[in-house]
Amino acid sequence: MIDVHGYAALDAQSPLTPFRFSRREVGRHDVLIKIQYCGICHSDVHQARDEWGGSLFPMVPGHEIVGTVEKVGASVKQFTVGQTVGVGCFVDSCRTCPACKKGLEQYCEGHLAFTYNGKERDGVTPTYGGYSTKVVVDQRYIVRIPKRLRPEEAAPLLCAGITTYSPLRHWRVGKKHRLAVVGLGGLGHMAVKIGTALGAHVTVLSHSDKKQADAKRLGAQAYYSTAKAETLTRLSKQFDFILDTVSAPHDLNAYLELLKTDGTMILVGAPDKPAKLDAFPLIMRRRRLVGSLIGGIKETQEMLDFCGKHKFGADVEVIPIQQVNTAYDRLVLGDVRYRFVIDMSSLT
Amino acid sequence: MIDVHGYAALDAQSPLTPFRFSRREVGRHDVLIKIQYCGICHSDVHQARDEWGGSLFPMVPGHEIVGTVEKVGASVKQFTVGQTVGVGCFVDSCRTCPACKKGLEQYCEGHLAFTYNGKERDGVTPTYGGYSTKVVVDQRYIVRIPKRLRPEEAAPLLCAGITTYSPLRHWRVGKKHRLAVVGLGGLGHMAVKIGTALGAHVTVLSHSDKKQADAKRLGAQAYYSTAKAETLTRLSKQFDFILDTVSAPHDLNAYLELLKTDGTMILVGAPDKPAKLDAFPLIMRRRRLVGSLIGGIKETQEMLDFCGKHKFGADVEVIPIQQVNTAYDRLVLGDVRYRFVIDMSSLT
Repeated sequence: MIDVHGYAALDAQSPLTPFRFSRREVGRHDVLIKIQYCGICHSDVHQARDEWGGSLFPMVPGHEIVGTVEKVGASVKQFTVGQTVGVGCFVDSCRTCPACKKGLEQYCEGHLAFTYNGKERDGVTPTYGGYSTKVVVDQRYIVRIPKRLRPEEAAPLLCAGITTYSPLRHWRVGKKHRLAVVGLGGLGHMAVKIGTALGAHVTVLSHSDKKQADAKRLGAQAYYSTAKAETLTRLSKQFDFILDTVSAPHDLNAYLELLKTDGTMILVGAPDKPAKLDAFPLIMRRRRLVGSLIGGIKETQEMLDFCGKHKFGADVEVIPIQQVNTAYDRLVLGDVRYRFVIDMSSLT
Repeated sequence: MIDVHGYAALDAQSPLTPFRFSRREVGRHDVLIKIQYCGICHSDVHQARDEWGGSLFPMVPGHEIVGTVEKVGASVKQFTVGQTVGVGCFVDSCRTCPACKKGLEQYCEGHLAFTYNGKERDGVTPTYGGYSTKVVVDQRYIVRIPKRLRPEEAAPLLCAGITTYSPLRHWRVGKKHRLAVVGLGGLGHMAVKIGTALGAHVTVLSHSDKKQADAKRLGAQAYYSTAKAETLTRLSKQFDFILDTVSAPHDLNAYLELLKTDGTMILVGAPDKPAKLDAFPLIMRRRRLVGSLIGGIKETQEMLDFCGKHKFGADVEVIPIQQVNTAYDRLVLGDVRYRFVIDMSSLT
């Protein structure tokens, strides 16, 4: 077994604390990764505080992992020692269902092993995430980090990047399309960058005026504060797509009215309470309300290569792991532009 | 002006009563139609009773109109005297917006003139519907009724038929697809016929066991009562498409769980209260919740030709107009299989 240092939530109420545990030995298909950086996703906070229910403790969060290959198993051909690689939201799947066979492992109909707060293939062994010094992962669930990306800026792409890239590609958002991004946080700021790189005309809808300059810098061509009453009426029927990244409860009907006929609103943020939905905004203009969950491994690699080509990662604030609990509190307040990333060299 | 007999709601509280009014003279592009049959749509009841708000009185309902051409204007080339024709939910549109130009007049961004409870192009003259002896309509908004269809069975196709045909075609429902039809009423029974004719495997989900034999006769290959608790869990992730025809408030989340990954739930019934919608059923399997509104003129003709080819109209109960108020009461109770159609010869 491999001895690992990390930070863990021991229960839903306590702050994260130093935690020692073991990883499995490197198997034939495994890669041992020395973790350099790990992003802090809002879902880390939800799960560490058991806000969605069903959390497993002790929990080592973290699913935006970038590191260097330290050792590879006998059958590993794709990765070599010293290479910079990434691990996202899952570390295994059933590999045999239609979704897995199509490269849509995120929709696996068998067992999807989440990177943390999940169980390995055996259904018993808990998974521990990236707030740690090392991780052992099957090569099928590892991606290459392009050299043109700084590793700390690449880490959040493993969740925030792919979560926004996947639906924008699936729905073929591109030139000629007007895209509204609702919410300018970790997901939203990636949606602006990726939507712009895909050629769309991007508008940011945020709940205040505060991020206007940032939005423009990130590539958005328009910005509106939804705190102003006239914003939503003024933008009626303006957009082909809306990417809604907000995970607090909000009025879907009002946003649906901003879509043109045949327009699509994509939900990637999951409020913990149901929204009230009227049928008329969908029916009267044949609009679509759809969901999307992260992305498959193949598409994650494609996204990383796309970001490498366009030379952008996430906007990050790098912190030592000793500040993780403060970062959680600041994240809940929206006080980060736009992703905290833990420098794991602070741990060893 | 052309003198016409009809039945009208004079206000939201009173039963429909005999009503005399005038239609415009036949213009260059107009067709004068002697109405033979007019279907009773549930929306007739909603509007005559002002249940959606904004109703215009006096109101002559009816937008499932079949009749014979009695006179044509000088520029009318497509229709000839004696021909059997139909008029659906609208009798004019702006003709210039992108939707109109694409043949999607139902999503007209200018002025859509509904067949009744609406206003003509001038924005002033009220429109009166098909519970009447004659109607004058611009040739662009008239369709041919195939000879293989009986006119009384064709009438409901102008709303119930196209409302279900349009989304099934738009989303390319066909062989290899499992389609669930929720609700077996006027819309639902047409969805079963059309879905079956398109080659889909059709399952009916109804709130009781009562219509099982009918569903099979109409072409459904499976039938489940949603009154049984196990139905919804048993059918988890079974369908590519769900066509939801129910206009009473109901639990969308439970139905969304019946869709496979990338499955689509189509709303064509509009409850008067918002539904509670969770984001997770959409996100976790990339599902889609979409709306659809009737259909354009070109597609309505295509639908009629399709029904003619497959030789089916609606299942109807023909009544004289003197029974219209009783029919409204029975319709609200769901006591009709599956569409009331008024024989307009009872009026003259």
